[in-house]
Amino acid sequence: MVLVDIGNTNYHIYKDGNITHIKNICSFEEKVYYISVNNEKEKDLLIKNPHAINLKNYVKFKTRYEGLGIDRIMACKSIKDGVVVDAGSAITVDIMENARHLGGFISPGIYAFKKAFGTISEVLKLEPLPLKNNLPNSTDEALNWGSIGAVKCLIEKVAENKKIYFTGGDGKFLCNMFEKSEYIDDLVFRGMMITIKEMEKK
Amino acid sequence: MVLVDIGNTNYHIYKDGNITHIKNICSFEEKVYYISVNNEKEKDLLIKNPHAINLKNYVKFKTRYEGLGIDRIMACKSIKDGVVVDAGSAITVDIMENARHLGGFISPGIYAFKKAFGTISEVLKLEPLPLKNNLPNSTDEALNWGSIGAVKCLIEKVAENKKIYFTGGDGKFLCNMFEKSEYIDDLVFRGMMITIKEMEKK
Repeated sequence: MVLVDIGNTNYHIYKDGNITHIKNICSFEEKVYYISVNNEKEKDLLIKNPHAINLKNYVKFKTRYEGLGIDRIMACKSIKDGVVVDAGSAITVDIMENARHLGGFISPGIYAFKKAFGTISEVLKLEPLPLKNNLPNSTDEALNWGSIGAVKCLIEKVAENKKIYFTGGDGKFLCNMFEKSEYIDDLVFRGMMITIKEMEKK
Repeated sequence: MVLVDIGNTNYHIYKDGNITHIKNICSFEEKVYYISVNNEKEKDLLIKNPHAINLKNYVKFKTRYEGLGIDRIMACKSIKDGVVVDAGSAITVDIMENARHLGGFISPGIYAFKKAFGTISEVLKLEPLPLKNNLPNSTDEALNWGSIGAVKCLIEKVAENKKIYFTGGDGKFLCNMFEKSEYIDDLVFRGMMITIKEMEKK
Protein backbone atom coordinates (compact mmCIF):
# COMPACT_ATOMS: atom_id res chain seq x y z
CA MET A 1 0.00 0.00 0.00
CA VAL A 2 1.22 3.49 -0.90
CA LEU A 3 -0.33 6.74 0.40
CA VAL A 4 0.12 9.92 -1.64
CA ASP A 5 -0.66 13.41 -0.30
CA ILE A 6 -0.56 15.76 -3.32
CA GLY A 7 0.32 19.27 -2.16
CA ASN A 8 0.81 22.47 -4.14
CA THR A 9 4.58 22.03 -4.35
CA ASN A 10 5.37 18.32 -3.84
CA TYR A 11 3.99 14.81 -3.80
CA HIS A 12 4.34 13.49 -0.23
CA ILE A 13 4.65 9.69 -0.28
CA TYR A 14 4.11 7.28 2.62
CA LYS A 15 5.41 3.76 1.97
CA ASP A 16 6.62 1.07 4.41
CA GLY A 17 6.56 3.57 7.29
CA ASN A 18 8.78 6.11 5.47
CA ILE A 19 7.86 9.53 4.12
CA THR A 20 9.48 10.99 1.00
CA HIS A 21 8.80 14.20 -0.91
CA ILE A 22 9.09 14.20 -4.71
CA LYS A 23 8.45 16.70 -7.51
CA ASN A 24 7.50 14.15 -10.21
CA ILE A 25 5.29 11.14 -9.65
CA CYS A 26 6.13 7.56 -10.69
CA SER A 27 4.15 4.32 -11.12
CA PHE A 28 3.71 2.10 -8.05
CA GLU A 29 3.17 -1.65 -8.03
CA GLU A 30 1.26 -1.43 -4.75
CA LYS A 31 -2.32 -0.23 -4.29
CA VAL A 32 -2.32 3.60 -4.24
CA TYR A 33 -4.59 5.78 -2.05
CA TYR A 34 -4.33 9.53 -2.44
CA ILE A 35 -5.65 12.98 -1.58
CA SER A 36 -4.97 16.12 -3.64
CA VAL A 37 -5.17 19.91 -3.50
CA ASN A 38 -3.59 20.33 -6.95
CA ASN A 39 -5.48 19.32 -10.10
CA GLU A 40 -2.48 19.22 -12.44
CA LYS A 41 -0.42 17.02 -10.13
CA GLU A 42 -3.47 14.78 -9.59
CA LYS A 43 -3.80 14.25 -13.36
CA ASP A 44 -0.15 13.18 -13.55
CA LEU A 45 -0.64 10.74 -10.67
CA LEU A 46 -3.66 9.16 -12.42
CA ILE A 47 -1.81 8.81 -15.74
CA LYS A 48 0.93 6.80 -13.99
CA ASN A 49 -1.43 5.07 -11.52
CA PRO A 50 -4.88 4.76 -13.17
CA HIS A 51 -6.35 2.68 -10.34
CA ALA A 52 -5.33 5.03 -7.53
CA ILE A 53 -8.21 5.68 -5.11
CA ASN A 54 -9.13 9.24 -4.10
CA LEU A 55 -9.92 9.11 -0.36
CA LYS A 56 -11.85 12.39 -0.63
CA ASN A 57 -14.80 10.33 -1.85
CA TYR A 58 -14.84 8.18 1.30
CA VAL A 59 -13.84 10.41 4.22
CA LYS A 60 -16.25 11.28 7.02
CA PHE A 61 -15.59 14.55 8.85
CA LYS A 62 -17.75 16.89 10.94
CA THR A 63 -17.34 20.58 10.11
CA ARG A 64 -19.34 23.64 9.11
CA TYR A 65 -16.35 24.99 7.16
CA GLU A 66 -17.20 25.27 3.47
CA GLY A 67 -14.50 23.97 1.13
CA LEU A 68 -12.09 22.73 3.79
CA GLY A 69 -9.01 21.32 2.03
CA ILE A 70 -8.78 17.53 2.06
CA ASP A 71 -5.22 17.68 3.46
CA ARG A 72 -6.51 19.70 6.43
CA ILE A 73 -9.36 17.20 6.95
CA MET A 74 -6.89 14.29 7.03
CA ALA A 75 -4.49 16.07 9.39
CA CYS A 76 -7.40 16.77 11.78
CA LYS A 77 -8.96 13.29 11.68
CA SER A 78 -6.61 11.73 14.23
CA ILE A 79 -6.79 14.66 16.70
CA LYS A 80 -9.82 14.64 18.99
CA ASP A 81 -8.96 17.81 20.94
CA GLY A 82 -6.27 20.30 19.99
CA VAL A 83 -4.95 22.68 17.38
CA VAL A 84 -3.61 21.21 14.12
CA VAL A 85 -0.96 23.21 12.26
CA ASP A 86 0.26 22.07 8.84
CA ALA A 87 3.22 24.27 7.88
CA GLY A 88 4.01 23.88 4.19
CA SER A 89 3.59 26.31 1.25
CA ALA A 90 0.75 27.72 3.37
CA ILE A 91 0.36 27.40 7.14
CA THR A 92 -3.10 26.01 7.89
CA VAL A 93 -4.39 26.10 11.46
CA ASP A 94 -7.46 24.13 12.55
CA ILE A 95 -9.18 23.75 15.91
CA MET A 96 -10.62 20.39 16.99
CA GLU A 97 -12.90 19.86 20.01
CA ASN A 98 -14.59 16.56 20.87
CA ALA A 99 -13.71 15.25 17.38
CA ARG A 100 -15.49 18.22 15.79
CA HIS A 101 -13.79 20.81 13.61
CA LEU A 102 -14.62 24.31 14.90
CA GLY A 103 -12.92 26.33 12.14
CA GLY A 104 -9.47 27.47 11.20
CA PHE A 105 -7.34 29.92 9.28
CA ILE A 106 -4.71 30.07 6.52
CA SER A 107 -1.46 32.04 6.67
CA PRO A 108 1.34 32.21 4.11
CA GLY A 109 4.10 29.62 4.67
CA ILE A 110 7.57 30.76 5.67
CA TYR A 111 8.87 30.64 2.08
CA ALA A 112 5.84 32.66 0.89
CA PHE A 113 6.57 35.30 3.58
CA LYS A 114 10.18 35.40 2.39
CA LYS A 115 9.07 36.00 -1.21
CA ALA A 116 6.44 38.55 -0.12
CA PHE A 117 9.03 40.69 1.70
CA GLY A 118 11.39 40.33 -1.28
CA THR A 119 8.82 41.80 -3.66
CA ILE A 120 8.37 44.86 -1.37
CA SER A 121 12.07 45.71 -1.11
CA GLU A 122 15.38 43.94 -1.66
CA VAL A 123 16.51 45.03 1.82
CA LEU A 124 13.68 43.05 3.49
CA LYS A 125 15.38 39.63 3.65
CA LEU A 126 13.59 37.22 5.99
CA GLU A 127 15.98 34.70 7.58
CA PRO A 128 13.88 32.56 9.94
CA LEU A 129 15.26 32.70 13.50
CA PRO A 130 13.97 31.60 16.89
CA LEU A 131 11.82 34.53 18.10
CA LYS A 132 13.16 36.63 20.96
CA ASN A 133 10.86 37.99 23.65
CA ASN A 134 12.11 41.58 23.52
CA LEU A 135 10.69 44.02 20.98
CA PRO A 136 12.83 43.83 17.80
CA ASN A 137 15.67 46.33 17.42
CA SER A 138 16.95 45.17 14.02
CA THR A 139 15.45 44.46 10.60
CA ASP A 140 16.18 40.71 10.92
CA GLU A 141 14.18 40.41 14.12
CA ALA A 142 11.49 42.84 12.92
CA LEU A 143 10.80 40.67 9.84
CA ASN A 144 10.66 37.48 11.94
CA TRP A 145 8.25 39.07 14.41
CA GLY A 146 6.04 40.58 11.68
CA SER A 147 5.62 37.30 9.81
CA ILE A 148 6.26 34.12 11.83
CA GLY A 149 5.64 36.00 15.09
CA ALA A 150 2.27 37.31 13.91
CA VAL A 151 1.13 33.81 12.94
CA LYS A 152 2.44 32.50 16.29
CA CYS A 153 0.43 35.17 18.12
CA LEU A 154 -2.81 34.10 16.42
CA ILE A 155 -2.12 30.38 16.95
CA GLU A 156 -1.61 31.02 20.68
CA LYS A 157 -4.81 33.06 20.82
CA VAL A 158 -7.01 30.39 19.21
CA ALA A 159 -5.26 27.55 21.09
CA GLU A 160 -6.17 28.98 24.51
CA ASN A 161 -4.93 26.05 26.57
CA LYS A 162 -5.19 23.28 23.97
CA LYS A 163 -2.23 21.19 22.84
CA ILE A 164 -0.86 22.15 19.40
CA TYR A 165 0.06 19.44 16.87
CA PHE A 166 2.46 20.38 14.07
CA THR A 167 3.18 18.71 10.76
CA GLY A 168 4.60 19.75 7.36
CA GLY A 169 8.02 20.90 6.16
CA ASP A 170 8.32 23.84 8.58
CA GLY A 171 6.36 22.09 11.35
CA LYS A 172 9.39 21.14 13.43
CA PHE A 173 10.81 24.68 13.35
CA LEU A 174 7.46 26.19 14.42
CA CYS A 175 6.75 23.48 17.00
CA ASN A 176 9.85 24.49 18.97
CA MET A 177 8.35 27.97 19.52
CA PHE A 178 5.38 26.63 21.51
CA GLU A 179 5.25 25.07 24.95
CA LYS A 180 2.37 22.61 24.80
CA SER A 181 3.18 21.22 21.38
CA GLU A 182 4.13 18.07 19.46
CA TYR A 183 5.52 17.48 15.98
CA ILE A 184 4.01 14.52 14.11
CA ASP A 185 5.51 14.06 10.66
CA ASP A 186 2.88 11.55 9.44
CA LEU A 187 -0.23 13.37 10.76
CA VAL A 188 -1.92 13.61 7.33
CA PHE A 189 -1.12 9.96 6.58
CA ARG A 190 -2.60 8.88 9.94
CA GLY A 191 -5.88 10.47 8.84
CA MET A 192 -5.65 8.69 5.49
CA MET A 193 -5.11 5.34 7.24
CA ILE A 194 -8.10 5.93 9.53
CA THR A 195 -10.19 6.68 6.41
CA ILE A 196 -9.06 3.46 4.71
CA LYS A 197 -10.04 1.48 7.84
CA GLU A 198 -13.47 3.17 7.86
CA MET A 199 -13.89 2.23 4.15
CA GLU A 200 -13.01 -1.39 4.81
CA LYS A 201 -15.48 -1.69 7.72
CA LYS A 202 -18.44 -1.11 5.42
CA MET B 1 7.51 74.32 0.56
CA VAL B 2 6.96 70.77 -0.69
CA LEU B 3 7.51 67.63 1.39
CA VAL B 4 8.23 64.36 -0.42
CA ASP B 5 8.10 60.92 1.26
CA ILE B 6 9.66 58.45 -1.20
CA GLY B 7 8.26 54.98 -0.57
CA ASN B 8 8.92 51.70 -2.35
CA THR B 9 5.90 52.07 -4.62
CA ASN B 10 5.00 55.77 -4.81
CA TYR B 11 6.14 59.30 -4.14
CA HIS B 12 3.90 60.78 -1.43
CA ILE B 13 3.70 64.56 -1.83
CA TYR B 14 2.58 67.10 0.78
CA LYS B 15 1.88 70.56 -0.63
CA ASP B 16 -0.45 73.32 0.60
CA GLY B 17 -1.99 70.96 3.14
CA ASN B 18 -2.87 68.32 0.54
CA ILE B 19 -1.40 64.85 0.08
CA THR B 20 -1.05 63.23 -3.35
CA HIS B 21 0.55 59.96 -4.44
CA ILE B 22 2.40 59.78 -7.76
CA LYS B 23 4.47 57.19 -9.62
CA ASN B 24 6.76 59.62 -11.47
CA ILE B 25 8.33 62.70 -9.92
CA CYS B 26 8.24 66.22 -11.41
CA SER B 27 10.15 69.48 -10.82
CA PHE B 28 8.85 71.83 -8.12
CA GLU B 29 9.33 75.59 -7.97
CA GLU B 30 9.11 75.52 -4.16
CA LYS B 31 11.83 74.40 -1.76
CA VAL B 32 11.77 70.58 -1.51
CA TYR B 33 12.42 68.55 1.66
CA TYR B 34 12.38 64.78 1.35
CA ILE B 35 12.98 61.39 2.94
CA SER B 36 13.51 58.16 0.99
CA VAL B 37 13.56 54.38 1.39
CA ASN B 38 14.15 53.78 -2.33
CA ASN B 39 17.47 54.69 -3.97
CA GLU B 40 16.27 54.63 -7.58
CA LYS B 41 13.30 56.90 -6.88
CA GLU B 42 15.55 59.21 -4.85
CA LYS B 43 17.92 59.59 -7.84
CA ASP B 44 15.00 60.59 -10.07
CA LEU B 45 13.85 63.16 -7.49
CA LEU B 46 17.33 64.71 -7.35
CA ILE B 47 17.63 64.89 -11.17
CA LYS B 48 14.39 66.91 -11.31
CA ASN B 49 15.03 68.80 -8.02
CA PRO B 50 18.80 69.09 -7.52
CA HIS B 51 18.50 71.32 -4.44
CA ALA B 52 16.08 69.07 -2.55
CA ILE B 53 17.12 68.57 1.08
CA ASN B 54 17.32 65.08 2.59
CA LEU B 55 15.91 65.37 6.14
CA LYS B 56 17.65 62.12 7.12
CA ASN B 57 20.80 64.18 7.65
CA TYR B 58 19.11 66.47 10.20
CA VAL B 59 16.67 64.32 12.16
CA LYS B 60 17.13 63.59 15.87
CA PHE B 61 15.53 60.41 17.19
CA LYS B 62 16.13 58.19 20.22
CA THR B 63 16.22 54.47 19.45
CA ARG B 64 18.40 51.39 19.85
CA TYR B 65 16.96 49.93 16.65
CA GLU B 66 19.71 49.51 14.05
CA GLY B 67 18.75 50.65 10.56
CA LEU B 68 15.29 51.97 11.38
CA GLY B 69 13.71 53.27 8.15
CA ILE B 70 13.56 57.06 7.90
CA ASP B 71 9.81 56.91 7.11
CA ARG B 72 9.23 55.04 10.37
CA ILE B 73 11.33 57.60 12.28
CA MET B 74 9.27 60.47 10.87
CA ALA B 75 5.94 58.76 11.59
CA CYS B 76 7.05 58.19 15.20
CA LYS B 77 8.43 61.68 15.82
CA SER B 78 5.09 63.33 16.59
CA ILE B 79 3.84 60.51 18.87
CA LYS B 80 5.09 60.64 22.45
CA ASP B 81 3.26 57.55 23.73
CA GLY B 82 1.53 55.01 21.55
CA VAL B 83 1.84 52.49 18.76
CA VAL B 84 2.54 53.80 15.24
CA VAL B 85 1.33 51.70 12.31
CA ASP B 86 2.22 52.67 8.74
CA ALA B 87 0.27 50.39 6.40
CA GLY B 88 1.65 50.62 2.87
CA SER B 89 3.59 48.08 0.75
CA ALA B 90 4.77 46.80 4.14
CA ILE B 91 3.01 47.27 7.49
CA THR B 92 5.51 48.75 9.97
CA VAL B 93 4.60 48.81 13.65
CA ASP B 94 6.60 50.88 16.18
CA ILE B 95 6.17 51.43 19.90
CA MET B 96 6.80 54.84 21.47
CA GLU B 97 7.04 55.52 25.22
CA ASN B 98 8.01 58.88 26.74
CA ALA B 99 9.23 60.03 23.31
CA ARG B 100 11.56 57.02 23.09
CA HIS B 101 11.31 54.32 20.41
CA LEU B 102 11.24 50.89 22.11
CA GLY B 103 11.35 48.74 18.95
CA GLY B 104 8.97 47.50 16.29
CA PHE B 105 8.22 44.95 13.63
CA ILE B 106 7.55 44.66 9.88
CA SER B 107 4.74 42.65 8.29
CA PRO B 108 3.81 42.34 4.62
CA GLY B 109 1.25 44.90 3.45
CA ILE B 110 -2.23 43.76 2.41
CA TYR B 111 -1.31 43.72 -1.30
CA ALA B 112 1.85 41.70 -0.53
CA PHE B 113 -0.28 39.16 1.41
CA LYS B 114 -2.62 38.96 -1.57
CA LYS B 115 0.27 38.22 -3.93
CA ALA B 116 1.84 35.76 -1.44
CA PHE B 117 -1.35 33.67 -1.29
CA GLY B 118 -1.66 33.87 -5.08
CA THR B 119 1.77 32.32 -5.56
CA ILE B 120 0.83 29.38 -3.28
CA SER B 121 -2.40 28.48 -5.08
CA GLU B 122 -4.82 30.19 -7.44
CA VAL B 123 -7.71 29.23 -5.14
CA LEU B 124 -6.26 31.32 -2.27
CA LYS B 125 -7.72 34.72 -3.21
CA LEU B 126 -7.50 37.25 -0.38
CA GLU B 127 -10.34 39.79 -0.46
CA PRO B 128 -9.87 42.07 2.55
CA LEU B 129 -12.98 42.04 4.76
CA PRO B 130 -13.76 43.30 8.26
CA LEU B 131 -12.67 40.46 10.57
CA LYS B 132 -15.39 38.47 12.30
CA ASN B 133 -14.98 37.27 15.88
CA ASN B 134 -15.99 33.67 15.23
CA LEU B 135 -13.44 31.14 13.99
CA PRO B 136 -13.46 31.18 10.16
CA ASN B 137 -15.66 28.64 8.38
CA SER B 138 -14.84 29.63 4.80
CA THR B 139 -11.68 30.19 2.74
CA ASP B 140 -12.42 33.95 2.45
CA GLU B 141 -12.52 34.40 6.22
CA ALA B 142 -9.64 31.96 6.79
CA LEU B 143 -7.33 34.00 4.53
CA ASN B 144 -8.33 37.28 6.21
CA TRP B 145 -7.70 35.84 9.66
CA GLY B 146 -4.39 34.23 8.69
CA SER B 147 -2.95 37.44 7.21
CA ILE B 148 -4.56 40.70 8.41
CA GLY B 149 -5.88 38.95 11.55
CA ALA B 150 -2.43 37.63 12.49
CA VAL B 151 -0.90 41.11 12.17
CA LYS B 152 -3.82 42.54 14.18
CA CYS B 153 -3.19 39.98 16.92
CA LEU B 154 0.46 41.02 17.25
CA ILE B 155 -0.37 44.76 17.14
CA GLU B 156 -2.87 44.25 20.00
CA LYS B 157 -0.30 42.26 21.96
CA VAL B 158 2.45 44.90 21.74
CA ALA B 159 0.00 47.78 22.22
CA GLU B 160 -1.15 46.52 25.63
CA ASN B 161 -3.31 49.52 26.52
CA LYS B 162 -1.61 52.18 24.38
CA LYS B 163 -3.43 54.18 21.72
CA ILE B 164 -2.69 53.06 18.15
CA TYR B 165 -2.02 55.64 15.43
CA PHE B 166 -2.49 54.55 11.81
CA THR B 167 -1.25 56.07 8.59
CA GLY B 168 -0.55 54.88 5.01
CA GLY B 169 -2.73 53.63 2.17
CA ASP B 170 -4.37 50.79 4.14
CA GLY B 171 -4.24 52.68 7.45
CA LYS B 172 -7.91 53.66 7.49
CA PHE B 173 -9.08 50.11 6.77
CA LEU B 174 -6.91 48.69 9.56
CA CYS B 175 -7.70 51.51 12.00
CA ASN B 176 -11.40 50.55 11.96
CA MET B 177 -10.48 47.12 13.41
CA PHE B 178 -9.09 48.57 16.64
CA GLU B 179 -10.88 50.28 19.52
CA LYS B 180 -8.36 52.78 20.89
CA SER B 181 -7.14 54.01 17.53
CA GLU B 182 -6.85 57.07 15.26
CA TYR B 183 -6.08 57.48 11.58
CA ILE B 184 -3.75 60.38 10.73
CA ASP B 185 -3.09 60.68 7.00
CA ASP B 186 -0.19 63.16 7.34
CA LEU B 187 1.65 61.45 10.24
CA VAL B 188 4.95 61.08 8.34
CA PHE B 189 4.74 64.68 7.11
CA ARG B 190 4.12 65.92 10.67
CA GLY B 191 7.45 64.36 11.65
CA MET B 192 9.13 65.98 8.65
CA MET B 193 7.76 69.38 9.66
CA ILE B 194 8.98 68.94 13.25
CA THR B 195 12.43 68.09 11.83
CA ILE B 196 12.46 71.23 9.65
CA LYS B 197 11.56 73.35 12.72
CA GLU B 198 14.40 71.70 14.69
CA MET B 199 16.81 72.48 11.80
CA GLU B 200 15.74 76.13 11.71
CA LYS B 201 16.19 76.57 15.48
CA LYS B 202 19.94 75.96 15.20
